[in-house]
Amino acid sequence: MKYCSECAHPVSLIVPPDDNRPRYVCANCGAIHYQNPKMVIGSIPVWEQDGEARILLCRRAIEPRHGYWTLPAGFMENNETTADAALRETAEEAGARIELHELFSLLNVAHVHQVHMFYRATLLDLNYAAGTESLEVKLFTESEIPWDQIAFPTVGQTLKFFFADRASLKNGGSYGLHTHDITTSMRQRDY
Amino acid sequence: MKYCSECAHPVSLIVPPDDNRPRYVCANCGAIHYQNPKMVIGSIPVWEQDGEARILLCRRAIEPRHGYWTLPAGFMENNETTADAALRETAEEAGARIELHELFSLLNVAHVHQVHMFYRATLLDLNYAAGTESLEVKLFTESEIPWDQIAFPTVGQTLKFFFADRASLKNGGSYGLHTHDITTSMRQRDY
Repeated sequence: MKYCSECAHPVSLIVPPDDNRPRYVCANCGAIHYQNPKMVIGSIPVWEQDGEARILLCRRAIEPRHGYWTLPAGFMENNETTADAALRETAEEAGARIELHELFSLLNVAHVHQVHMFYRATLLDLNYAAGTESLEVKLFTESEIPWDQIAFPTVGQTLKFFFADRASLKNGGSYGLHTHDITTSMRQRDY
Repeated sequence: MKYCSECAHPVSLIVPPDDNRPRYVCANCGAIHYQNPKMVIGSIPVWEQDGEARILLCRRAIEPRHGYWTLPAGFMENNETTADAALRETAEEAGARIELHELFSLLNVAHVHQVHMFYRATLLDLNYAAGTESLEVKLFTESEIPWDQIAFPTVGQTLKFFFADRASLKNGGSYGLHTHDITTSMRQRDY
């Protein structure tokens, strides 16, 4: 940020009075321009068949991580709820209709100022189709998942939590909320 | 937003190519200025005594809702995790040391572009003290809580969820994650 978005005067990075960290402050109009983390919200669309869970993944048509696989997810928008965002991103990126269940994972990615959240979901039909941000959309069983071609650590970690919880069901386990901090990137160049 | 923060040129609110909602776009340098929801993170600091839970609340010394009671909470900052934010806000507003437990509530306040989250926590000692944003800080049992003087609907709802879960413990219940959408303001003038 170089200029005040309210009056176009150059801003300075200083600690405002009664604050304890540097902010972009406008000496002309007095505006303080706060910068805060963003939320990336998605779903884990599950299709159950022959006693096995298949997960709908999207191969990214955009940077970062073009060509890599991800759960449908994206930046939460103003005027929507976290559940709205999960439904919207799943429709936009995977053309998929889902029934949303509870919040399943919350992952902090502090070094890029993001919090990622994924809802567990049931895929309602097989009429999914790649949106403009996806090259292809496909169902994967646990053994079929391309673990070395997953776009983001938060997606890989969420898939691991999902299959661990699912395996625990037969021993009386259940799905629960998983919180996790990502402290290093899967591939250093991407973050 | 009136001017581009990168080049000081006036911005226009238009739908960019390959997008589906209006953004502030700079016709001079091409920057798209996205605006996204913010996270407000806090804690529920609990002090157990004589078989009763006492919750630490802060009376606000700042607007909005000056003079009303809140759980310690505030805007999450860049470079921190949600847990970091809960610990920091509890220290700043209530001068309190806590042990953080699991995420307890996530509340969408879509009409003000916010998501509020509260962690369950144990107050570690009674050496708390009002920070610069609090007039006073005080422990309340459930019956003592000033329900009609709670600053924000997300705080009142979180306290209700907390005491309901706590009451369920003696019947084999447990604390769980509560998600909830706030669709109207407690007092219209405040949101």
